[in-house]
Amino acid sequence: MKSFNLETLELAKQRQNRLTKPPGSLGQLESVAIQLAGCQGKVCPEINQPWISVFAADHGVTEEGVSAFPAVVTQEMVKNFSAGGAAITVIAAQENAFFEVVDVGVLNDVSPLPSLVSDRVSAGSFNFAKQAAMSDEMMQNAMKVGKRAVTRAINADSDLFIAGEMGIGNTSSATAIISQICQQPVAKLVGRGTGVDDKQLLHKQHVLESALALHQAQMQSPEAVLRCVGGLEIAALTGAYLECARIGLPMVVDGVIACAAALIAYEIDSQVKPWMMFGHQSVEPAQQAVFNHLKVEPLLDLSMRLGEGSGAAMAIPIIRLACALHTNMATFEEAQVSDAN
Amino acid sequence: MKSFNLETLELAKQRQNRLTKPPGSLGQLESVAIQLAGCQGKVCPEINQPWISVFAADHGVTEEGVSAFPAVVTQEMVKNFSAGGAAITVIAAQENAFFEVVDVGVLNDVSPLPSLVSDRVSAGSFNFAKQAAMSDEMMQNAMKVGKRAVTRAINADSDLFIAGEMGIGNTSSATAIISQICQQPVAKLVGRGTGVDDKQLLHKQHVLESALALHQAQMQSPEAVLRCVGGLEIAALTGAYLECARIGLPMVVDGVIACAAALIAYEIDSQVKPWMMFGHQSVEPAQQAVFNHLKVEPLLDLSMRLGEGSGAAMAIPIIRLACALHTNMATFEEAQVSDAN
Repeated sequence: MKSFNLETLELAKQRQNRLTKPPGSLGQLESVAIQLAGCQGKVCPEINQPWISVFAADHGVTEEGVSAFPAVVTQEMVKNFSAGGAAITVIAAQENAFFEVVDVGVLNDVSPLPSLVSDRVSAGSFNFAKQAAMSDEMMQNAMKVGKRAVTRAINADSDLFIAGEMGIGNTSSATAIISQICQQPVAKLVGRGTGVDDKQLLHKQHVLESALALHQAQMQSPEAVLRCVGGLEIAALTGAYLECARIGLPMVVDGVIACAAALIAYEIDSQVKPWMMFGHQSVEPAQQAVFNHLKVEPLLDLSMRLGEGSGAAMAIPIIRLACALHTNMATFEEAQVSDAN
Repeated sequence: MKSFNLETLELAKQRQNRLTKPPGSLGQLESVAIQLAGCQGKVCPEINQPWISVFAADHGVTEEGVSAFPAVVTQEMVKNFSAGGAAITVIAAQENAFFEVVDVGVLNDVSPLPSLVSDRVSAGSFNFAKQAAMSDEMMQNAMKVGKRAVTRAINADSDLFIAGEMGIGNTSSATAIISQICQQPVAKLVGRGTGVDDKQLLHKQHVLESALALHQAQMQSPEAVLRCVGGLEIAALTGAYLECARIGLPMVVDGVIACAAALIAYEIDSQVKPWMMFGHQSVEPAQQAVFNHLKVEPLLDLSMRLGEGSGAAMAIPIIRLACALHTNMATFEEAQVSDAN
């Protein structure tokens, strides 16, 4: 892991206390600027080129009827990403972020399309209600897909990495991962995903409880949890997060699925955490368990539950403003403003 | 009051449900776009030119030692606004918002300065621990200062109005107003403002309790509350909010002081509410009482407590993104994406 610059972090803290405002009055905007000062090794950090990779894959577990939308939507949404009609692509355009969608394992190959990177590991994952979601080789390969996306981001001089995901059924995977690692009951964590009703929600809970029981003996490491109940795109996100921390590229983590991947990455190497910001509080209840486990707070709480990296991307302007305030505000001395009594 | 367009509001709601996402999954971004569709009378609203007026005035009640900063800071910060070194001016520059600071009643006249509009009513308000903060004439004149700022905004083709404030001592005024109108005890509402310590906080509480007792018989209308325990800049904000609603200019309300003004405006005419968005959750406890009274929710919660309009201005990019998503996302039909099962 790249080492965090504690010297610029400390200087950034000192700078915040000299700016013309009551100390601490910019709240999380101060902590974001200070964290980025440590990441970038610059007292006054800046974000010039955000990068967004959305990883798409299908989930065998959709056979169990755990989602409100049919599995074919994963592929249809890949086309929508390519055409620029999805939420994440609209935000990327508005914020001048580079955007790509990466096919890690959609059921049907839909390449070539504009903005689509075909880096397929397999045609979806297996149904984890019946067997492990992935073989070890599939998981390792999917993690490398994430790593390659980060390499592309670095080669394009990006300074902020956002990983999004698309995969019908993946709140089921994420909830199972979080339940297992945070050791909290599924009943407390399971949410409505794209919008299941009460009856489907109870069914989803039972599917996840049975699956966790089925794989319990195998899940002795974070990688094993990912392999048993994860998915190809979640493995890609995990690989991307580990690579971001290894090379020192700060990242914004999205909603519950991205948080499940961040949790696995953190369990593999806790040194990923200083490189992570958390974009938003999702409506999905499992996400809060990750925030508690990692002792972190998200930037936004807009009652979003869309995925795709959309909640993380919404935080881009907030992070940019945090940097602008940190860099461009006058100090008490410069402005000749009196300090507190 | 200008009438809200319920037809475009309804069409915007229908549009949100056809966009390629689970219904409701963009949370508050959906409600903001729908609200603005009603304000602008356009199914697809847009924000092109935000306007920020910061109203500055001094408070006689600072004689009582209710603030962590000396009263002279109001004037010093007016110069800092003019020079572009304050938080709100940095955000305004980053978001291409028009910015002006309006001297409604700073103790010492500091005009002329760039970006400063001198529209002085008096050299500060009176000490409301001993007498009414303003005469009726002062209050009416200060409300007109706010109205004139909105006229300037409209003449400059602005489509979003943000009122900020600067006035050492004004969390005391705001807390007294909110306590009186929401009928909640000062002890539950009083906060640290720019940063008073525990002892000063208790003192601030006692000053406010005594002042409310002193003026109780006079405070029989929202205007009377404003006159007795408000301040010149709070009256200007109130006047601005009423004028925005009268001519149909949507606004973003800032922290606890702006919320006190919004509360008075709402009590004078509840039809102001559809034109108001609320930028952020402040750290000041009194603000929540206003949200509960008005039954509204803020967009951001970044633990800010700075005032100046900074929390409202931080919401500008969020509101712009809400409009971009609403307008530019593909519908299920356009993108040929399957709807929920």
